[in-house]
Amino acid sequence: MRVRKKHGAYEALVEKKTYFIAEPEENKGKWQSIFGNDHPIYAEFGGGKGRFIIAMALKFPDINFIMVDAVTEVLLKAVENAEEHVLPNLKMIKIDLKFALNYFNAGELDRIYLNFSDPWPKRRHYKRRLTYRDFLETYKTVLNSKGWIYFKTDNRGLFEFSLNEFAEMDLIMRKISLNLHADVTIDNIMTEYEEKFSSMGHPIYRVELTFKR
Amino acid sequence: MRVRKKHGAYEALVEKKTYFIAEPEENKGKWQSIFGNDHPIYAEFGGGKGRFIIAMALKFPDINFIMVDAVTEVLLKAVENAEEHVLPNLKMIKIDLKFALNYFNAGELDRIYLNFSDPWPKRRHYKRRLTYRDFLETYKTVLNSKGWIYFKTDNRGLFEFSLNEFAEMDLIMRKISLNLHADVTIDNIMTEYEEKFSSMGHPIYRVELTFKR
Repeated sequence: MRVRKKHGAYEALVEKKTYFIAEPEENKGKWQSIFGNDHPIYAEFGGGKGRFIIAMALKFPDINFIMVDAVTEVLLKAVENAEEHVLPNLKMIKIDLKFALNYFNAGELDRIYLNFSDPWPKRRHYKRRLTYRDFLETYKTVLNSKGWIYFKTDNRGLFEFSLNEFAEMDLIMRKISLNLHADVTIDNIMTEYEEKFSSMGHPIYRVELTFKR
Repeated sequence: MRVRKKHGAYEALVEKKTYFIAEPEENKGKWQSIFGNDHPIYAEFGGGKGRFIIAMALKFPDINFIMVDAVTEVLLKAVENAEEHVLPNLKMIKIDLKFALNYFNAGELDRIYLNFSDPWPKRRHYKRRLTYRDFLETYKTVLNSKGWIYFKTDNRGLFEFSLNEFAEMDLIMRKISLNLHADVTIDNIMTEYEEKFSSMGHPIYRVELTFKR
């Protein structure tokens, strides 16, 4: 997501202590104690303005949610959106997912959502796509052995790249959809992007993934 | 493909002995001797009017090709199209692929093409789709252990169904394309359908498949 840099945004963000955790590396292996319960932890990697994760946190109070993003201004907006609700089961952090192992213990997450990840359409940028194999290796570590990744995007090029990465890495795939909104059997909460692109008539692609162990 | 029934079509077909083999079960395990050489054998399952397989046979004289279809009138047209050329490396047969094991020995085929297979869009007809798991089991038997299946279609629903079958059956997938004609790296010979649907702006989906052994 392209965003305008905003002076003082990070200073504003770290003050939002209800939802934003400024030093997430200190919580590695301790996320359940942050939430104060033993509920499963679902993370969204690249959560944008938070619409999806906030809707999920409202709908599933017995699940803990962690929204990850790398962009301060986007996180600030997400936190502000969260502040319209009371959501003890939601936290947000600013990290570079390349270093996800610094922030989560092995098996600490029960599910990972990748929603409308940046497609990085230029060929030379393929290693930045969140479904690139090095990221998948990281997800394999932080994801519980019974956990799944739920991935959706409107970007055909990204989905094609991703399917090939998943196949190459011998991931288990299920519920592959090439037009999610035509498929009434999958329960779906829309992101901002999804509503926009779907209303423009773009198909939404989706798949659930896990790792052979 | 819907076709008008034509009186006397089968009688005409069996006379076309250069290309049409009327009793293919007699060739089970003997296909290379029919061609009189030890070249690899590539089969197209559901070949329609033969445009693809004829172009392939012209382009690759050192490969033997077998076109399979179930519909007499379509096969007659395919044979007539083939008669415009001299192609000792091409044969056509009329079989029901449910019984493919009656016509090919284990490992007798080196490649299988599935091009624009009938999508059987009604949910209750899914077992007729040529990528349904029972067909895949058959292909696994008749395909050489190093052989691949090349599948392409313009039908999103069929491709989605197929990807899920391939994933469920734990097939190896590679070169998954969600818009073949945008992908310049894959050499491609078009079928009749493909030219028509692609010119209408439909994306063509494609994948290569093999079996874990």
